[in-house]
Amino acid sequence: MIKVGIIGASGYTGGELIRFLLKHPDAEVVTATSRKYDGEPIYKVHPHLRDSELKFENLEPGELDADLVFTATPHGVSMKIVPELIDNNIRVIDLSGDYRFDNLELYEKWYGFRHSNPLEAVYGLPEINRDQIKGADLVANPGCYPTGAILACLPMVKEKIVDNIVVDSKSGVSGAGVNPTETTHYPNCSDSVSPYAVTTHRHGPEIQEKLSKFGPSKVSFTPHLVPVIRGIMSTVHGFITEDVIPEYVQEIYNEFYEGEPFVKVLDKGEVPRLSSVRGSNNCHIGCFEIDENGRLVVASSIDNLVKGASGQAVHNMNLMFGLPEKEGIDLIGLHP
Amino acid sequence: MIKVGIIGASGYTGGELIRFLLKHPDAEVVTATSRKYDGEPIYKVHPHLRDSELKFENLEPGELDADLVFTATPHGVSMKIVPELIDNNIRVIDLSGDYRFDNLELYEKWYGFRHSNPLEAVYGLPEINRDQIKGADLVANPGCYPTGAILACLPMVKEKIVDNIVVDSKSGVSGAGVNPTETTHYPNCSDSVSPYAVTTHRHGPEIQEKLSKFGPSKVSFTPHLVPVIRGIMSTVHGFITEDVIPEYVQEIYNEFYEGEPFVKVLDKGEVPRLSSVRGSNNCHIGCFEIDENGRLVVASSIDNLVKGASGQAVHNMNLMFGLPEKEGIDLIGLHP
Amino acid sequence: MIKVGIIGASGYTGGELIRFLLKHPDAEVVTATSRKYDGEPIYKVHPHLRDSELKFENLEPGELDADLVFTATPHGVSMKIVPELIDNNIRVIDLSGDYRFDNLELYEKWYGFRHSNPLEAVYGLPEINRDQIKGADLVANPGCYPTGAILACLPMVKEKIVDNIVVDSKSGVSGAGVNPTETTHYPNCSDSVSPYAVTTHRHGPEIQEKLSKFGPSKVSFTPHLVPVIRGIMSTVHGFITEDVIPEYVQEIYNEFYEGEPFVKVLDKGEVPRLSSVRGSNNCHIGCFEIDENGRLVVASSIDNLVKGASGQAVHNMNLMFGLPEKEGIDLIGLHP
Amino acid sequence: MIKVGIIGASGYTGGELIRFLLKHPDAEVVTATSRKYDGEPIYKVHPHLRDSELKFENLEPGELDADLVFTATPHGVSMKIVPELIDNNIRVIDLSGDYRFDNLELYEKWYGFRHSNPLEAVYGLPEINRDQIKGADLVANPGCYPTGAILACLPMVKEKIVDNIVVDSKSGVSGAGVNPTETTHYPNCSDSVSPYAVTTHRHGPEIQEKLSKFGPSKVSFTPHLVPVIRGIMSTVHGFITEDVIPEYVQEIYNEFYEGEPFVKVLDKGEVPRLSSVRGSNNCHIGCFEIDENGRLVVASSIDNLVKGASGQAVHNMNLMFGLPEKEGIDLIGLHP
Repeated sequence: MIKVGIIGASGYTGGELIRFLLKHPDAEVVTATSRKYDGEPIYKVHPHLRDSELKFENLEPGELDADLVFTATPHGVSMKIVPELIDNNIRVIDLSGDYRFDNLELYEKWYGFRHSNPLEAVYGLPEINRDQIKGADLVANPGCYPTGAILACLPMVKEKIVDNIVVDSKSGVSGAGVNPTETTHYPNCSDSVSPYAVTTHRHGPEIQEKLSKFGPSKVSFTPHLVPVIRGIMSTVHGFITEDVIPEYVQEIYNEFYEGEPFVKVLDKGEVPRLSSVRGSNNCHIGCFEIDENGRLVVASSIDNLVKGASGQAVHNMNLMFGLPEKEGIDLIGLHP
Repeated sequence: MIKVGIIGASGYTGGELIRFLLKHPDAEVVTATSRKYDGEPIYKVHPHLRDSELKFENLEPGELDADLVFTATPHGVSMKIVPELIDNNIRVIDLSGDYRFDNLELYEKWYGFRHSNPLEAVYGLPEINRDQIKGADLVANPGCYPTGAILACLPMVKEKIVDNIVVDSKSGVSGAGVNPTETTHYPNCSDSVSPYAVTTHRHGPEIQEKLSKFGPSKVSFTPHLVPVIRGIMSTVHGFITEDVIPEYVQEIYNEFYEGEPFVKVLDKGEVPRLSSVRGSNNCHIGCFEIDENGRLVVASSIDNLVKGASGQAVHNMNLMFGLPEKEGIDLIGLHP
Repeated sequence: MIKVGIIGASGYTGGELIRFLLKHPDAEVVTATSRKYDGEPIYKVHPHLRDSELKFENLEPGELDADLVFTATPHGVSMKIVPELIDNNIRVIDLSGDYRFDNLELYEKWYGFRHSNPLEAVYGLPEINRDQIKGADLVANPGCYPTGAILACLPMVKEKIVDNIVVDSKSGVSGAGVNPTETTHYPNCSDSVSPYAVTTHRHGPEIQEKLSKFGPSKVSFTPHLVPVIRGIMSTVHGFITEDVIPEYVQEIYNEFYEGEPFVKVLDKGEVPRLSSVRGSNNCHIGCFEIDENGRLVVASSIDNLVKGASGQAVHNMNLMFGLPEKEGIDLIGLHP
Repeated sequence: MIKVGIIGASGYTGGELIRFLLKHPDAEVVTATSRKYDGEPIYKVHPHLRDSELKFENLEPGELDADLVFTATPHGVSMKIVPELIDNNIRVIDLSGDYRFDNLELYEKWYGFRHSNPLEAVYGLPEINRDQIKGADLVANPGCYPTGAILACLPMVKEKIVDNIVVDSKSGVSGAGVNPTETTHYPNCSDSVSPYAVTTHRHGPEIQEKLSKFGPSKVSFTPHLVPVIRGIMSTVHGFITEDVIPEYVQEIYNEFYEGEPFVKVLDKGEVPRLSSVRGSNNCHIGCFEIDENGRLVVASSIDNLVKGASGQAVHNMNLMFGLPEKEGIDLIGLHP
């Protein structure tokens, strides 16, 4: 039984980690930390976890006794915690942005922090780094937008059939986290849609850095907030560089993702929708249409809290500890 | 391995039955019928079930080879199918209203049908009929509103602390089924609330008949449609007949539901909400407040498609076949 | 031209007051105060008011030069502002709860404040106090729940056909105001429903006090939060004391509200819905059904920010200044 | 007083036309036709129009006595009605797609009909065709997507600062019309997002045809369905051909739309959102950011039923009859 600690367990990603791990046959949450809710049963914050007797504890990182710790802490906080855990021989999956970039300058430019504790980490997108994740002590869990966007772009970039890509993403509000703001205030965001950080979102350079290893494409990214609890729809508009037909593109995707446990390439005529993956660790990819302007459209849907965060983190844990990949996250989505 | 057939598998309750049974260790869906989608993979209708290779079949009831059949068929249709299944020694859980009433006249009055095939059936609410369900060949799965309402009312009725009850329920739109109507048209029901069938809903007499076995209360029922996909909030306003205090009422509920696998009595200060039970088979019951007019308020929340339909049906299956009660439906809700 | 000041103009009720007054032929907003947004154009906070050149000002009450001031300030704050305005010969419509109660003890019990500045005020529900409002210097604008609930109950109470009433109300989230909280955080309240303050909401005694002048009924009140931006559905369950028929009840309501500019009694077969009154100052009242338990059901719908707050406040202004009642608020709702 | 007829008045665009015209000082709806609801008061279908005594009539086009007729009829139906109206000296504003294309072949290719009655029509986007609309007998009211997309693209195209444009649009469900379908069924589209007709939507060639008169850009269009009642957000990603800065682009837009009554160019730092224009005839345009890949982002928001349909139609009426442009449609949006 893997002993698991979760630092920052009162947020949405913390709640999701516990949801998965409570049913995981080979892992057990031994510690769920929260400064604010120290001593409270977790179900006071996560009302759906009412069957669990777990309580929040206010522990310092150095006090944790665990085989693996998930750091579900904000950007800039993880870097202060992770090195001590690693020193204590605890393997770590970090859900913040602190260890996602290879290029430290890029991190510092977009996050506005100086990085105090650079460490070698593996970018935890199993579809591209499966083998490295297995041996890693520190895995940087990908951002929610990058997960959906990279999976939608990867085969077209790798096959070099496009050179210029626009990723237009639509995210549910849980992506903004558990803390209320004007933006997430129901009357302000319900029945509305708005773009934000249109050319300046931190996930843009993350997508670009990861994809650039596979091909020379330029990738431009714009996110939107939509009145949805969970889910990200990433619509990828790629301009083709050679004369390909939709059937060929579909074939590339089918082959690329064959055998992947959580990526589903849709049939011709199907479209990805958020409700198809709600609550599950799946990524649906479809469309594969090309218009008269040489624009190829591919769209992907994920649940931002699962494949875009905690589900993927458990997937990484399974890989790191040699467990079956789907253990604990073999969940069917909730449609309708 | 129990061989299961589902008649009428293309609706929401059919989809939910499959969702649970695909992960059930002791049951297997051998047949999922649909006239309209004959030959299609089920994921064309239920996009979240993409991993299943099951296909819809257009079979007559007499053609089914199964240990158990769920009839997820409309009111009035089940009565034409169920007797033949029973004759063929197939046990049946009927999700329609056809076998819910003890009093046939009541059924015929409220459903407007003559009942062509009355059979003895057990009302499948495990919390009141656990033992009878175990031996039953035909279980009538309760209505969605009655499930939440009866569970919220039962202890106060049984203890005879109230004699006059108003049940004001708020249901999500999936309760109206899979077929689009003006009422379920997004622009008509989103961002709105409306009462319907305010004194004439069929679930009113069902609630009354079942509760009247436990005490002499009058129960008045009014449902509302709220812009929610899943879930029923039933707010019970009961007028007390003796001078009780909230703590005593809470105690009654705690005792009554102690050990029940799916009913959770909330602590003082907690309120039931739909998101706490979304996607799960749980019923949350709370509030237990009494005002100056001698009105006791108790509220319950369920997922209408799970505890209010298919989850409860699988619970009944587990009971009928001597399996652990939570098998296949030990799901954690999806919050947020 | 009536010179109007609005104190606390950055909230939702402030925004609505401006929406109506910008098009009002006989009134003009000369001052809209906000401490936080001093100097900002109002459209930075109210993006729908982009055509207006009005700016927020940080003024003390004593600095206002106006014929009328709307105090859209929190409970407990109004009582510190209103007396000075009245002393300066400015008429006031207060949108807080500070002047709504006749019985000061009741106010202090439910609001938990000592009232520092009791003044004589007219309860600004035009349908019951039209004449007194005309001559008033201080009008207490009714609470949102009381507006819908009282209008739905009034004829049945006045005609003494019921003696025991349950008001089960469902409110949109804008009723919680403009400040984000956990309760109003989109992922927490979307796709969910929850009761709150089930026997302890301040609007309960307000409803009871106002109705008790018309008849001896007991009124019990429970509010719920529903995933809607605007609107309150109040479902009234009244137990009848004599043998009346629905047609008679409908007739009572038709007569009672005949000629009222903003109350619409629906026909048999119609139901009130929130979308029918969204954005308008109308109150729709309907249902008028009686069940076998002698329970009469009447339901009303209003927009909580309009008839339940700012629209009604402008209606009161029109009455106070001898203007046509519908001026500035003769708005058609937004359906769908 | 202009006598107005509406053919097809039971749909959403019909309801909106009546909403505006009931308050229009110089126009009067004399006839509102509906085959299905013949003889019914319009408020049975449009519950927000309860104050109107108008009734639906089942009239043939030849029976209408009017100065102007709005044909709110489906594509393919308008072409059978409009010529007779024109012959009878009735001016017409057609809300279908039948008269929008200059290039008839393009129409027939994308709509799949042979056009039976080509007539000369003016494309009713006042911002580009104000003068021609004034003298027109037949105005083709633009599609909802084209209205928002063209207004967002026009200045950048006219100034030739881009040559390749992706328009990624997100539409509310009312755009699908009043008839329920699986797509618009609340449980299917709530809390979800999906792309549709990703390279094949009819509004794509409409946008391209109109913009190509102003510059040589390629325009690629993909629409999405979002869980919103009203509104279209069009995010325009344009690749720049010369080295421009955001301030310059903003300046171009400010100048281009100066004096336009319904187009609002937002300030730096503001973003368009659907709630800012809900229920109004305004189009908000903002963003004006350029990323490292030379991608310029501009986004526009409209209410699809108002600026995207009926409000724009009334604007066209005002132009055709020499009335002040804002008459009847000078409505403030509904936020929140």
